[in-house]
Amino acid sequence: MNKTVKSIREAIELSGLKSGMTVSFHHHLRNGDYVLNMVMDEISALGIRDINVNASSLFDVHMPLIEHIKSGTVTEIATDYISSGLGKHFSKGIMEKPIEFRTHGGRPTDIALGRTPIDVAFIAAPTADTMGNCSGKYGKSACGSLGYAFADAMYAKKVVVITDNLVSYPMQDWSISENFVDYVVSVDSIGDPKGIVSGTTKITRDPVGLVMASHAAKVIEASGLLKDGFSFQTGAGGASLAVAKFLKDIMLREKIEGSFGLGGITGYMVDMLQAGCFRNLLDVQCFDLSAVESLRNDPRHMEISSLQYASVLGRSAAVDSLDVVILGATEIDTDFNVNVHTDSNGYIMGGSGGHSDTAAGAKLSMIIAPMFRARLPIVTDRVNCISTPGKDIDVLVTQGGIAVNPRREELRKKLSEAGLPIIDIHDLKEKTEKITGTPTKLVKGDKVVANIIGREGDLLDRIYNVTD
Amino acid sequence: MNKTVKSIREAIELSGLKSGMTVSFHHHLRNGDYVLNMVMDEISALGIRDINVNASSLFDVHMPLIEHIKSGTVTEIATDYISSGLGKHFSKGIMEKPIEFRTHGGRPTDIALGRTPIDVAFIAAPTADTMGNCSGKYGKSACGSLGYAFADAMYAKKVVVITDNLVSYPMQDWSISENFVDYVVSVDSIGDPKGIVSGTTKITRDPVGLVMASHAAKVIEASGLLKDGFSFQTGAGGASLAVAKFLKDIMLREKIEGSFGLGGITGYMVDMLQAGCFRNLLDVQCFDLSAVESLRNDPRHMEISSLQYASVLGRSAAVDSLDVVILGATEIDTDFNVNVHTDSNGYIMGGSGGHSDTAAGAKLSMIIAPMFRARLPIVTDRVNCISTPGKDIDVLVTQGGIAVNPRREELRKKLSEAGLPIIDIHDLKEKTEKITGTPTKLVKGDKVVANIIGREGDLLDRIYNVTD
Repeated sequence: MNKTVKSIREAIELSGLKSGMTVSFHHHLRNGDYVLNMVMDEISALGIRDINVNASSLFDVHMPLIEHIKSGTVTEIATDYISSGLGKHFSKGIMEKPIEFRTHGGRPTDIALGRTPIDVAFIAAPTADTMGNCSGKYGKSACGSLGYAFADAMYAKKVVVITDNLVSYPMQDWSISENFVDYVVSVDSIGDPKGIVSGTTKITRDPVGLVMASHAAKVIEASGLLKDGFSFQTGAGGASLAVAKFLKDIMLREKIEGSFGLGGITGYMVDMLQAGCFRNLLDVQCFDLSAVESLRNDPRHMEISSLQYASVLGRSAAVDSLDVVILGATEIDTDFNVNVHTDSNGYIMGGSGGHSDTAAGAKLSMIIAPMFRARLPIVTDRVNCISTPGKDIDVLVTQGGIAVNPRREELRKKLSEAGLPIIDIHDLKEKTEKITGTPTKLVKGDKVVANIIGREGDLLDRIYNVTD
Repeated sequence: MNKTVKSIREAIELSGLKSGMTVSFHHHLRNGDYVLNMVMDEISALGIRDINVNASSLFDVHMPLIEHIKSGTVTEIATDYISSGLGKHFSKGIMEKPIEFRTHGGRPTDIALGRTPIDVAFIAAPTADTMGNCSGKYGKSACGSLGYAFADAMYAKKVVVITDNLVSYPMQDWSISENFVDYVVSVDSIGDPKGIVSGTTKITRDPVGLVMASHAAKVIEASGLLKDGFSFQTGAGGASLAVAKFLKDIMLREKIEGSFGLGGITGYMVDMLQAGCFRNLLDVQCFDLSAVESLRNDPRHMEISSLQYASVLGRSAAVDSLDVVILGATEIDTDFNVNVHTDSNGYIMGGSGGHSDTAAGAKLSMIIAPMFRARLPIVTDRVNCISTPGKDIDVLVTQGGIAVNPRREELRKKLSEAGLPIIDIHDLKEKTEKITGTPTKLVKGDKVVANIIGREGDLLDRIYNVTD
């Protein structure tokens, strides 16, 4: 018995894929991914049409999707994130059916519950054996964690593993196991290493970013959460990393032993692990080579599936044990609703990813953002798109003051007692608009181009088309 | 959030367990297990009755079950193996409903498919954290692999982890993850280490055993399977280990690099790993301390769930890639059907475990057994109980000759060409009976005490009561 087949085309044919079905992809190869395009090109060449593409995220490398949409090969898309180049096309309304945006925790929930059934999952695997055991930790295209691919493998009707490092059975230290895999295809390359992992993101040197980061670290200190057992997630942005830097200094100085760092893992979180700030890292996605190496070599650094990371399906997820998460925003409104889906012109340029999931789970969810970008204020009356509901956001840190959600009055008191510059979010909006002027309201089109589905399956909001 | 509760009683109450429901247990603590008895005592004390106990195996340490059966607390049992002390009671017909025997691969299949739904799974865990991540590798009661507990955790309506080594969240290197676990109970001791892992089983010194083992090794050599990539499973019996010893010598001499050793893992298989006979071990259960240590420390030695080991539910299982398995028998008939459930008097004293699964999966499944035991011939016209169907058994090795299943004519030729002493199984029966005399036929009772359910869910046979 041996599951290897000659080509992607043969795997598609064997899988029984027909017009109208759903295929899925994970995004661990990020903007270096070749697999989605290779598979969709074959599907198109086979004359299969009306395909629903369920991808955990889509990047600009997936631009050929636009042609497949125009030709009718692809008619539905479900994803958690769309980068700005692709997003512009979708915002112009090229699809008849709205895109379905989910969160990184909501996507596997809906797959597992059969709300978004997958007919054929295509799993890009940096290493796989002939029976389909596979991992992202090894091989020339190593991407580290395969966290977002587990649900696809576990629940799809057919599972095709595509690898550029086929090894003999059994591979050592697999992530996804053979019992889920139908076919294995060996190809020359599944991705461009330069696009798979970014270089280490640099900590911001921008004075505004440093002020915000310093405020953020003080908020965490004043919250009372920064003590032994502390757990933390932050993004890969320059200001978020600066918060991590300040936290690391405090933790080392005060000899605080945290429990775990969570999330998409950067080299900076690896540094904190190695410095003793955390006992463990729980990793659903590696952002850089340092994270990949650490996941491969350091047993304290562990891979988790998106189900274990953030899904409400299980009895608990790692986000439920999270103390603090640092998050970004393109807009936040006076009810603390956050937009990370669209830019200031209304174009799709992101998605929730784990934003909503961690905000809901963490004891302290913090947005860190400048008061304005390109003379557009961060605080508005109503965000153009609710990515994360305001009830799950505790505090907004800007260089112009710290706004605390009125639902967290006890937190406001603590921060105030610590001498931090607290400001009511309405006042912050006014203060900002004194600098920037009142922005003109965005004019939405009348076609729904995307539905935002919350982590528990509820419709949170809609995105409308942008007209020039 | 924290899933720890004060006591087993509180966990049972919170789980919603009611009369008529099903509870489950795994058997990795073997004859040292305290957990099944502690839980059943509490269930009984709570006045809950008519419970179905689904345990992957039952040992004599579980003798208190007999009282729970007599009192009506337990009215149904499903398991894969029952040791002889307990077996005697069941064979006398103390239960109204027949026991359901399954295989180690069939049990998780039927749990996953909802054929044998579990209301509350109780998982004995040598280490667990406060959110239920748990492992068998660490702690004073370390048992190694938790392979048989995965299906229970994944599919039970409620999951209770019981540990005597509660650690802070997150534990490192968990086997079963928090998303499956509802409650965690910390107790003083989950088992007696002396009963959990046996000392290393000694290789047989019995001349008959050594002759059989030498024949067995030659059969494997002559089969053509003993080459690079060779994979192998054997039991913990003295003759089986002697086969391993002979194989190891051949492999080292011929510089053959095997791929994997599978199964319940003994120190002897660990020795073969360390000597370079195998690249990896796939471990569903550790039989001794050496296996536990190796699983904990050696990344080449990997834990697998029973689903991945042997279930027909997945797209493949490890047994499907197995070259050779060495198995035992209490009887084998002229159609090669094997009994490992009952002894010569018809009393239950075992069960299939992975017998049927590996026999079905392996390219060469070999029974190794003496021609007779206590003057009772191993070969009969019809076994008293079909544990593994004859179609899945390829060869019987005894000191009096090697019988090959007529379905494997090409194998018979190879062995014959290698000069091995081939004998027709009918002739072997006759030859044996010339020594032992013709045994008297066992008189079965008229009550069915157990049904034998094959690995694909089919009814293979029935076991009847024994009358004195």
